[in-house]
Amino acid sequence: MNEPLSTQPYKGVRDFYPASMAVQQYIFDTWSETAQRFGYERYDASVLEPSALYKAKGAENSEMVNDQTYTFTDRGDREVTLRPEMTPTVARMIAGKARELAWPARWYSIPNLFRYERAQRGRLREHWQLNVDMFGASSLMSDVEIIQLAHQIFLDFGATPDMFEILINNRATMNHAYSALGISSADTVTEITRLNDRKDKISADEYLVALTNITKDESLAQEIKTMIESPDAGDNQVVATLRDLGITNVRIDRSLARGFDYYTGTIFEIKDTHPDNNRSLLGGGRYDNLTSLFGGEPISGIGFGFGDVTMRDFLETHDLLPDNVTHTAPVVAVLPVSTAEHLPAMQLAQQIRETGLSCSVDTTERKIGKKITTAANANVSYIITLGEDEVSSSTYTMKHLESGKDFSGTLSEIIASLSQS
Amino acid sequence: MNEPLSTQPYKGVRDFYPASMAVQQYIFDTWSETAQRFGYERYDASVLEPSALYKAKGAENSEMVNDQTYTFTDRGDREVTLRPEMTPTVARMIAGKARELAWPARWYSIPNLFRYERAQRGRLREHWQLNVDMFGASSLMSDVEIIQLAHQIFLDFGATPDMFEILINNRATMNHAYSALGISSADTVTEITRLNDRKDKISADEYLVALTNITKDESLAQEIKTMIESPDAGDNQVVATLRDLGITNVRIDRSLARGFDYYTGTIFEIKDTHPDNNRSLLGGGRYDNLTSLFGGEPISGIGFGFGDVTMRDFLETHDLLPDNVTHTAPVVAVLPVSTAEHLPAMQLAQQIRETGLSCSVDTTERKIGKKITTAANANVSYIITLGEDEVSSSTYTMKHLESGKDFSGTLSEIIASLSQS
Repeated sequence: MNEPLSTQPYKGVRDFYPASMAVQQYIFDTWSETAQRFGYERYDASVLEPSALYKAKGAENSEMVNDQTYTFTDRGDREVTLRPEMTPTVARMIAGKARELAWPARWYSIPNLFRYERAQRGRLREHWQLNVDMFGASSLMSDVEIIQLAHQIFLDFGATPDMFEILINNRATMNHAYSALGISSADTVTEITRLNDRKDKISADEYLVALTNITKDESLAQEIKTMIESPDAGDNQVVATLRDLGITNVRIDRSLARGFDYYTGTIFEIKDTHPDNNRSLLGGGRYDNLTSLFGGEPISGIGFGFGDVTMRDFLETHDLLPDNVTHTAPVVAVLPVSTAEHLPAMQLAQQIRETGLSCSVDTTERKIGKKITTAANANVSYIITLGEDEVSSSTYTMKHLESGKDFSGTLSEIIASLSQS
Repeated sequence: MNEPLSTQPYKGVRDFYPASMAVQQYIFDTWSETAQRFGYERYDASVLEPSALYKAKGAENSEMVNDQTYTFTDRGDREVTLRPEMTPTVARMIAGKARELAWPARWYSIPNLFRYERAQRGRLREHWQLNVDMFGASSLMSDVEIIQLAHQIFLDFGATPDMFEILINNRATMNHAYSALGISSADTVTEITRLNDRKDKISADEYLVALTNITKDESLAQEIKTMIESPDAGDNQVVATLRDLGITNVRIDRSLARGFDYYTGTIFEIKDTHPDNNRSLLGGGRYDNLTSLFGGEPISGIGFGFGDVTMRDFLETHDLLPDNVTHTAPVVAVLPVSTAEHLPAMQLAQQIRETGLSCSVDTTERKIGKKITTAANANVSYIITLGEDEVSSSTYTMKHLESGKDFSGTLSEIIASLSQS
């Protein structure tokens, strides 16, 4: 005999058993409903992408350097990557049908994304992410809409505005501010932006030292730090319009950087305000030049990504997961007393399904008491025990397990009384 | 400037633009509803699996030899495979929680699967597949239930029983039949089974020659051929019970082999009866020993897989796709006449969404006529044009684009008349 195989999944990925999958499905369904209510259409693509998509100048991403992707060479000598993010894919698809699409294009997707991280601190190598993007609209109203949609997702999960906070910045405004301080090199701005992305994780002194290292000018570094930390919101129309729409948990944060180099305008982030989960939940921004990598006219885009793991953490932290989400058992279980009732039980179950109710049949050889216990443990709502008498009379008793309440009669009588109760 | 990047996806995989994604979603939703109506719970896992899962003795699969999988070595020197089928994964998961699960376990999933084929004749390297399995139940009633569920899927898509046919065979019965003919070597039986899997694709003469090559005995080859081609259904209780349940488009086919070596009992296939699409749509069977690869008690399983591409082909061949499946636009579009109405339009749209309707706002700078055309082309159902007068009076006109019918009044008056119409 060979060694038994391991039942563990591949390192850093998750198995979704039914109870966990039900939470996943609840999250995906709620995401979809909110996006669709705003008029966004769902799209999808393969997890396999040509590696060139992530290597093009302008598509690089400081969060996801190439040695953090799953990349391999296929037998046709093509370099292929398991997508680490969805934005390059959606930009590719939008650019590919630019002449046919109606503008603006409002699109969403719920892809799985891969990141090769040395397995540590339980970080995952695969996660799912809601991606919402609008293409072909560059007015500030589209920035507002995207952020309003992100805000609405939280409300649709039952959150209240005190549970989260929207931080907003603007890459173009920041470039002007750097320029006003005499910094004209785009590379220097990129370096400062990447530093800002880590600002929360280092001390004020370390931040100043790092700024000085970048600028080689201690007093300039101090000026930058003062500008970044200035709470003055200035005249940000996105923030003002969000407030006009009744969204008040929003503020400017000039240190907000977001990892992706391709952002060009508004960038934003939503953070959990709970002290136990004080982290970024969702982030996005405007990228004006990504589709031009594919040739043709540039098409402006704005969007965000929201991961399943951070979503779950938020829902758990704020106790927002409905209790019954993990109850995935059928509504009715038909329990034949002996094998003689197996066929009638299968026939009865099929009639029940035809009324639209979900129904399973226990055709094991277990004793009836054990069948009832199994159904109860699985959170079945109603059981019908099927013995000789029930089969010969075609009248049944359906028991509601939680209340113990009975409904007796022909099947249609039971279904009728069920829909009235 | 660099060469523009290609907008094509990786070779052999598909992009799902919204209209195509809507069909995909319709298929997935219908699959889920049928499976759930039978009491099956959804699970999922990562596409990445340890390669060992597909190499273990007993897990091999003649359809999917190892040089047809995407396999690579990760940086931790782990060999990893993009799953080519779901059954080894679900067997792994079931074995991993064998002590905790309630039996029988009724599970379904809609995974994407990968197969490395030399790109030819448009064959795809990635497809999605409904997988439905029951574990821990070995009675023939569970075989019946699984096939009944597969049959129900077709009905739930609007198919009638004349459009498809269920073929049934049994590996154990076939082993007895081979044994009765004096064939006792399991390897010989496997060779004959694999040959039967190709029987449709070769001539009767080629089949007989191949049988003779396997058995080295011309008259035995003829006897096997006669046995295989015998239309005598014998006493198959699965077929008989399906007929008792009103399913009549079912017959025994002794040449039915199915590719997977791990099947041990009932095997089945559903074929399209339409002359333009005369092919296998769905297949499955019972596998009694797969979980024992992981150690512990063996747990019997039976299940099937149904691919998205064959599902689409069937629906298209029989013209079963509802016309409105690809209409993914929101129900209402709010169209501000000028930028002065942008903010009021955003506020109105949000109030419309709060009634549960989907709604988009056109905040582009296009002329109002162009906005109306765009909404109509996108198959929006209702538009509200918002000018100065509408904003100042808070009364609006909502036009049904298809009928040209108008609803005027305050928003709540419009919503009320909408729900009555």
